[in-house]
Amino acid sequence: MIRKLLQITFKKDGQHSPLYLQLESEIIQLICRGILKPGQVLPPSRELAQSLRINRKTVVKTYEELNAQGWVEIRDRSGVYVSGNLPDTAARRISQNSEKLIRSRQPAYPLISRSADIAIRTSTDVEINAAGIPAPLYRIDDGFPDPRIAPIEELIREYRRYGKSHLANHLMMYGPEHGSYHLRVELANFLNRTRGMQVSEKEILITKGTQMAIYLTAQVLIRPGDSVFVPDPGYHAANQVFNLLGAHLTFIPVDKDGMDIDRIEQLCLTKQTPKLVYIIPHHHRPTTVTLCAERRMRLMNLAHKYRFAVLEDDYDFDYHFSSNPLLPLASLDSGSHIIYVGSFCKSIAPGIRIGFMVAPEVVINEAAAIRKLIDRQGEQLLEESLAELLRTGDISRHLKKSHKLYEQRLENSCRLLQEQLGPYLTFERPNGGLAIWAKYRKDISAKAVARKASKLGLKISDGSNYFFQPNIIQPDNFIRIGYCSLDETEMAGAIDVWKQALVTFGLK
Amino acid sequence: MIRKLLQITFKKDGQHSPLYLQLESEIIQLICRGILKPGQVLPPSRELAQSLRINRKTVVKTYEELNAQGWVEIRDRSGVYVSGNLPDTAARRISQNSEKLIRSRQPAYPLISRSADIAIRTSTDVEINAAGIPAPLYRIDDGFPDPRIAPIEELIREYRRYGKSHLANHLMMYGPEHGSYHLRVELANFLNRTRGMQVSEKEILITKGTQMAIYLTAQVLIRPGDSVFVPDPGYHAANQVFNLLGAHLTFIPVDKDGMDIDRIEQLCLTKQTPKLVYIIPHHHRPTTVTLCAERRMRLMNLAHKYRFAVLEDDYDFDYHFSSNPLLPLASLDSGSHIIYVGSFCKSIAPGIRIGFMVAPEVVINEAAAIRKLIDRQGEQLLEESLAELLRTGDISRHLKKSHKLYEQRLENSCRLLQEQLGPYLTFERPNGGLAIWAKYRKDISAKAVARKASKLGLKISDGSNYFFQPNIIQPDNFIRIGYCSLDETEMAGAIDVWKQALVTFGLK
Repeated sequence: MIRKLLQITFKKDGQHSPLYLQLESEIIQLICRGILKPGQVLPPSRELAQSLRINRKTVVKTYEELNAQGWVEIRDRSGVYVSGNLPDTAARRISQNSEKLIRSRQPAYPLISRSADIAIRTSTDVEINAAGIPAPLYRIDDGFPDPRIAPIEELIREYRRYGKSHLANHLMMYGPEHGSYHLRVELANFLNRTRGMQVSEKEILITKGTQMAIYLTAQVLIRPGDSVFVPDPGYHAANQVFNLLGAHLTFIPVDKDGMDIDRIEQLCLTKQTPKLVYIIPHHHRPTTVTLCAERRMRLMNLAHKYRFAVLEDDYDFDYHFSSNPLLPLASLDSGSHIIYVGSFCKSIAPGIRIGFMVAPEVVINEAAAIRKLIDRQGEQLLEESLAELLRTGDISRHLKKSHKLYEQRLENSCRLLQEQLGPYLTFERPNGGLAIWAKYRKDISAKAVARKASKLGLKISDGSNYFFQPNIIQPDNFIRIGYCSLDETEMAGAIDVWKQALVTFGLK
Repeated sequence: MIRKLLQITFKKDGQHSPLYLQLESEIIQLICRGILKPGQVLPPSRELAQSLRINRKTVVKTYEELNAQGWVEIRDRSGVYVSGNLPDTAARRISQNSEKLIRSRQPAYPLISRSADIAIRTSTDVEINAAGIPAPLYRIDDGFPDPRIAPIEELIREYRRYGKSHLANHLMMYGPEHGSYHLRVELANFLNRTRGMQVSEKEILITKGTQMAIYLTAQVLIRPGDSVFVPDPGYHAANQVFNLLGAHLTFIPVDKDGMDIDRIEQLCLTKQTPKLVYIIPHHHRPTTVTLCAERRMRLMNLAHKYRFAVLEDDYDFDYHFSSNPLLPLASLDSGSHIIYVGSFCKSIAPGIRIGFMVAPEVVINEAAAIRKLIDRQGEQLLEESLAELLRTGDISRHLKKSHKLYEQRLENSCRLLQEQLGPYLTFERPNGGLAIWAKYRKDISAKAVARKASKLGLKISDGSNYFFQPNIIQPDNFIRIGYCSLDETEMAGAIDVWKQALVTFGLK
């Protein structure tokens, strides 16, 4: 009977598992399920080998392993027995029907199942899989930089240099959860130089992109039921973090001057004071608007009066075209109200997963303690390499170069959009940031356009994940147009395909 | 008065901030604090420049920036005025005392302050700071591999190759939150080959070390108040994750055969069924014991009967010396109860922050959705590079080589401990893992030894963070001795210093 069972369940699988391990695992499973009972004799190795058509040595090795691990006892001259000290289990699924013997691939335990609420569909992501790079398409993204002009080669050069240096062995061990000391020092200099901030390395935590900085800030401040004010339209992945931690979200409208601070004041006056206000003051995502001076001042006053924290997401500070970039709120506050987060994902490349959080030391240490539980620490080689590029000025030079190029691409994209897609959408030239915010004609749905465009070879936003206010009908004719990752020819090609997709909606 | 105030607050700081940005930030702050009022005139640029002893051009540039951003209005021939549309704020801290004008570096908002509960002191971590590598010391760690023999050069070679390949631009963009497809495929093969598992890439999530895999598992399963069983003595950083998420921990004793499954059964029988059992069955941390076959079987039966999940932490599978490694529980279960986590931090180097979580696809997708909110994705270049080393067999060759070397180091360390420290401590040679678990004589406190040793130039565990059961007195004379990261000469030197530290306790 055992031999027959094993003939059914033991399939030399194509999964690279050595035969003796497969057989070992099968026999342990038969024991665990109570099909093989304590004290029961196993088939002689020669017999089992024959019936499974495998080498007898494999069976002998399996039996020896099982013996060493205490699953069976090899008694000289008498045979191999299931260990007598194992518990006697009522057999489960004793049928010899092989279907039933195949183990379940479903969890038998309950899940919380949050993904339905928090999954973020990002249709323009790229997965390089067995088929290689996905078929060549135009792809207009959410506002990402062009990695082709980023100092990746310089970064890898430093990576390699550190990997061969006398520091390498230390960098390959556990290190500080706050991130590389050198990177924090260089970053403090960089932030002070470019943003008029006055921070030291003790007020900086190196994170994995802005995303982890938002997550850690929320972990430090939010308990289930706490109130968080977020902009609407706004940034999906931030809202989802606050949701995950059980916050109660209040959606604050955004107009051409940024978040509506009047609305925040009204809520505070009626005792609905938030614990945290999340804001993207420089180039609001998705609409690209800048929070005006008057509102900046009033927000700071409110934060002071009502003692709430402000999470300032400055994800693309470095690209501002109409004047110098505006100083962040954080440069006016020294951290008593503002927690400042940003990253190098937009200034270098999204694949360089280095971001930062700036706050008073006590807040940074709280966040670092939580960070240690999440992923222990960052990639030390990469952090040291980036520190070196900051120190040598490679990053500043890259920013200067790309600033110029992106301003050209912005001009070009605006011109093409106006000329080619004028009848279908309207937009205003943004003052900065890596994207243009446009509005389709009322009768055109972004979803329908995205579907049509996809068939023609263009991946483009379907207008979802911009608006979140529940219980009201959300507009579906807005779209964010990243203009940096395509060069002029590519953008012309992309807009050409886009136009073909739009033509079907007719002129009005 | 404005000039006087600015003379006090405007200090040309040494923090690399351009003067005009510093002045800009100072003036905005005076406006925000209500010290400069809407409509108020600012000093003429020549006057201000003189009194601050800076170039007049700097002041002009500052005024122009402030004007572009809406903080002031430049009226031709009449002067520079604070914008009239800004809110009129009651002046805060109006004193001209410069101390009071210096901004607070303390948060004005409430923190949850979890770090007191969750901070993990790891006295043997290394931070490379301004002073360079810390003074040369012997350092006996918790059981880390020796990065000097790891295939770091091969890994960096692949990193560089991918960074220059036609895939580079894709790898520098956003990618799958599940981790590299190639790495998941190679890892599935590797796990199937070495551990007798039968998993596909869809059942794998690439994480940042085992730590993130534990964190995500907890996020997928645990709500505040849920019950989690953990071993005692056990692993601090796992317990802290469960604490952070609000779980109720029950401590299960560990003896020479691993976690006490009788105790788990008793609790289940009295309706105290857990949601999750956390276990380290192969080489328990810290005691290095292996869960015996009979207990493995009973744990699986209990999980089946009471529908709880088992989180199997197999952080150092690859090093087992007395026989082949034991098959993980996960190889007997196909994921219906076992969530399997591990990493390359022990098999390559802690600095290589790549780990994994193995579970049914539906569980993996839940974890991936949460992972996306935490840090979006892993380092794609590094993941592809590791996939390549798995594919070429470099990792397997490294494991073979280091297995042999570590077995020698284990022999050598056991001999030295016996010969040199025999009067002070006892231990059993472990079957595997990267550390030895030893017990000092009753009258010797690990904390006192660590203090003494540190003064003599040896960093060594102080015996904390092994036992957690509250309300009972915890032993403080146990110590975990990592024997892999020091070569034979280094270990002899370290034990020599250790002996000097112990001699003060006298012979008994």
